[in-house]
Amino acid sequence: MACSKLEIVKTAHAMADAARGVILPLFRADGMDVENKADPLAGYDPVTAADKAAETVMRTVLAERRPDDGILGEEFGARQGTTGLTWVLDPIDGTRAFVAGAPTWGVLIAVSDDTGPVYGLVDQPYIAERFEGGFGRAVMTGPQGERRLRTRGNRPLAEATVFTTFPEVGTQAEGDAFRAVADQTRLTRYGLDCYAYALVAGGYVDLVIEAGLNAYDIQAPIAVIEAAGGIVTDWSGGPAHGGGRVVAAAGRQQHEAALDILGQFL
Amino acid sequence: MACSKLEIVKTAHAMADAARGVILPLFRADGMDVENKADPLAGYDPVTAADKAAETVMRTVLAERRPDDGILGEEFGARQGTTGLTWVLDPIDGTRAFVAGAPTWGVLIAVSDDTGPVYGLVDQPYIAERFEGGFGRAVMTGPQGERRLRTRGNRPLAEATVFTTFPEVGTQAEGDAFRAVADQTRLTRYGLDCYAYALVAGGYVDLVIEAGLNAYDIQAPIAVIEAAGGIVTDWSGGPAHGGGRVVAAAGRQQHEAALDILGQFL
Repeated sequence: MACSKLEIVKTAHAMADAARGVILPLFRADGMDVENKADPLAGYDPVTAADKAAETVMRTVLAERRPDDGILGEEFGARQGTTGLTWVLDPIDGTRAFVAGAPTWGVLIAVSDDTGPVYGLVDQPYIAERFEGGFGRAVMTGPQGERRLRTRGNRPLAEATVFTTFPEVGTQAEGDAFRAVADQTRLTRYGLDCYAYALVAGGYVDLVIEAGLNAYDIQAPIAVIEAAGGIVTDWSGGPAHGGGRVVAAAGRQQHEAALDILGQFL
Repeated sequence: MACSKLEIVKTAHAMADAARGVILPLFRADGMDVENKADPLAGYDPVTAADKAAETVMRTVLAERRPDDGILGEEFGARQGTTGLTWVLDPIDGTRAFVAGAPTWGVLIAVSDDTGPVYGLVDQPYIAERFEGGFGRAVMTGPQGERRLRTRGNRPLAEATVFTTFPEVGTQAEGDAFRAVADQTRLTRYGLDCYAYALVAGGYVDLVIEAGLNAYDIQAPIAVIEAAGGIVTDWSGGPAHGGGRVVAAAGRQQHEAALDILGQFL
């Protein structure tokens, strides 16, 4: 089993390396190929050639190394496996950041069993930063080398930093609930997509509160944050790995304080 | 004069290198020393040891290489010079991003004469990215090497990407004006501070609209964007180098469209 875990970790890194290789030449490239896969009247949901190329190469790595595992990917859907493990992939989380040239998008890779994610990896190719958690690992590598991930722990809401993708996501009512929490914190920041979850795991941020997420948006962050000592649930305190409304917290104190306020809006 | 310009450029790079050297060991450091220099009731305006250390080392470089120029710095105020040139410094623009561990803050260095900034540099030490413009230069260096900066040029507002630090800055009325423009664009993103201006210069973003800026927040972005072919003015189309309400645009078409809408709120 230890051998199997190591193989899973090595596979995840091989997938992230392969994704970097196809994404980076397309990031900030002239004439970047941006489609609009949503109803044009419903908003702007670009899918780039990079998204599709990255999921394709990650699936190729899985076909070679873990052909019996299941796959759930943002771009190319679900494939049943026979091992009880499923790879949950978002080739570029934060596509809108990507098309705007901002280095706050990420490649999300999670491995889940029936209970939810057991291992996750968040990669930012341009900065060359990788955050991972699970199987006893909680580590980041980046421009300043390698360090252990550890959330900052308990802290009063009045001293907390909260990140969100509101006002870009969620309903009006969900936005009101988010702001009721944010109003009680010391600092609110916007727009980092998956990178905000990595900052919780790194110990720099107390809370991320979002809504309207898909499973592939949140499974890798859950694994990384939980491995670093944090907590991720839905707004009612239940499991978050199916997506929807999510609270990620650096400690139990921030988590409970946020749930108390969000609960008044449910 | 050509020699003098080269010396100015070399001095700016020496200052940015020195700032990197003192800031990076403090970025994401445990127990980061954060003061609150504003009235606690008025909001959260942290000043870190890194801000002060960076402005100090930049002033030391100037004392050695350009002792007769003036200085206007965020942390340590103004010093009159005798050459007609003033160095305008924001050691860490985006302090709130900095304290939250997000790599979207920057070191801002501008050189101004009576007419405004003639050269500017925006440095992101963690990513090791540097954007500069002026004296015929418009170039960035980063993880993928060196490339020329060029804004994306004219484009209809309906196809534009706009960045802002709203809702964190400005008055309610200014926020309403911003949203009236943003509602006409294709994509609105939040929270990047000076990095958003660098993305305009790089050709990825059409507009940045902000309010409540200081001179040291905007002078370096002005020089970089103008050198790359863009336009930076206040919301009335006048000079922006004094700060206040700012529109930065990739082309004349986006600029005029934004001013038309903002003008309805002035």
